[in-house]
Amino acid sequence: MPTRVRQDLFDPRRGLDRGRSRAVELLWYGCKLVFFLSAWPWPSALRVWLLRRFGARVGPGVVIKPRVNIHLPWKLSVGAHAWLGEEVFILNFEPVSIGAHACISQRVFLCTGNHDFRDVTMPYRNRPIVVGDGAWVGAQVFVAPGVSIGDEAVVTAGSVVTRPLPPAMICAGHPCAPIKPRWPA
Amino acid sequence: MPTRVRQDLFDPRRGLDRGRSRAVELLWYGCKLVFFLSAWPWPSALRVWLLRRFGARVGPGVVIKPRVNIHLPWKLSVGAHAWLGEEVFILNFEPVSIGAHACISQRVFLCTGNHDFRDVTMPYRNRPIVVGDGAWVGAQVFVAPGVSIGDEAVVTAGSVVTRPLPPAMICAGHPCAPIKPRWPA
Amino acid sequence: MPTRVRQDLFDPRRGLDRGRSRAVELLWYGCKLVFFLSAWPWPSALRVWLLRRFGARVGPGVVIKPRVNIHLPWKLSVGAHAWLGEEVFILNFEPVSIGAHACISQRVFLCTGNHDFRDVTMPYRNRPIVVGDGAWVGAQVFVAPGVSIGDEAVVTAGSVVTRPLPPAMICAGHPCAPIKPRWPA
Repeated sequence: MPTRVRQDLFDPRRGLDRGRSRAVELLWYGCKLVFFLSAWPWPSALRVWLLRRFGARVGPGVVIKPRVNIHLPWKLSVGAHAWLGEEVFILNFEPVSIGAHACISQRVFLCTGNHDFRDVTMPYRNRPIVVGDGAWVGAQVFVAPGVSIGDEAVVTAGSVVTRPLPPAMICAGHPCAPIKPRWPA
Repeated sequence: MPTRVRQDLFDPRRGLDRGRSRAVELLWYGCKLVFFLSAWPWPSALRVWLLRRFGARVGPGVVIKPRVNIHLPWKLSVGAHAWLGEEVFILNFEPVSIGAHACISQRVFLCTGNHDFRDVTMPYRNRPIVVGDGAWVGAQVFVAPGVSIGDEAVVTAGSVVTRPLPPAMICAGHPCAPIKPRWPA
Repeated sequence: MPTRVRQDLFDPRRGLDRGRSRAVELLWYGCKLVFFLSAWPWPSALRVWLLRRFGARVGPGVVIKPRVNIHLPWKLSVGAHAWLGEEVFILNFEPVSIGAHACISQRVFLCTGNHDFRDVTMPYRNRPIVVGDGAWVGAQVFVAPGVSIGDEAVVTAGSVVTRPLPPAMICAGHPCAPIKPRWPA
């Protein structure tokens, strides 16, 4: 019996506004290939300048390490003095907002991409992600679509974040949950 | 006291039939380097054509995104209209079978490689992996050697799959377990 | 209200001795780019030779696969006949010691990097990592700063290791914990 799922009927335009023309997206992909995905140690300032040219809102003092994968820069905002580590993967079909002074550590995956898997054509069900000001998302953390991480939250390395996290709490685990306050009482 | 483990006595031919000559494997590695591991946006059709040339069974309408790592293409089968995302890692010392209309999301690791760690020479104990028709393996999921994922199963992002998963169930966690049915009753 | 966190006041020299001049580090980065991060199948012997030139202590018979990311080679020691798989990420601000006959599988992340997140300037709080002789760290395992993994321990794939692990035990999970002895009684 063949499966009910019909990926051949998947409509990539349903539930997704790519936000720019195919030409602009290709141009971005070329820039991404050379200046973002490669390991070449381009200065952060050049990467930030490029992101802004493509419509990202990026504050001053932002650091972007090599091998960062950003899908659609015009759906990205990064606050002042935020830091993005190597191999960060930002699959931002929907907006990703990273707060000021936030730290996104190595191999973090911010994933706005999702599908309505109860529809056999698997239409997009993408949702935005917010990382609050001063939050620290530890290395290799996965953040699911629609999640908001509160200001000054700390997400310990390796966690899988499937639900919103409150501000100023240390959060850990799979699924990730608040454990204790970040700041001394 | 020195360790009992003797990786110097590891025999790479014990428990593994690579399936092709060293020359063919090198040729594949060259193709993989240029057409698969690189971020260059080659058309999926070219990647599929190459896989078939190297003995993979690949159905029509298959999409393969950039930066996918396939170890031994002659031990891979991919059904019609399946989709493989960026940074998927298929370590297929033993056959990996991906069903029709299956979705393998970004950063998934399908790992057939294993060792008999109770033997001090660490011989291979590799096992095949099956992903059923219409199944969706979410982003950053790890699938262990020998695992079968049932038809139309949904594995939520970040899960670690160590045991077989039944068909048409939503499965989550570490270790990954079935939670509830995919389809409305 | 602006966040209390002040990454603009982060001092990269506080709590971190990089151990070599900026010039040496740049030279290493160049070598890393060409001989380590790339997928080109350089012989392990060349990689080992380079690591030793940059101050790493590497025993005989060590295998290093492509796309391994080593931060500061002069803070790395690898025992005889150890094996490092593809996409291993060694963020060794502090020393990482990998024992003889140890196996570090694909996509493992050995992370010595940390921050004192209760200080608003996020100073480094990096800690060394030790992987014992004959230990096997399975694919996609994350190892947190300060962790020691005992001799001959087996860490199953996908685990998140946040605490020390005893020798000769099979350890699994998130957080990773000892389950049963490796060797038959």
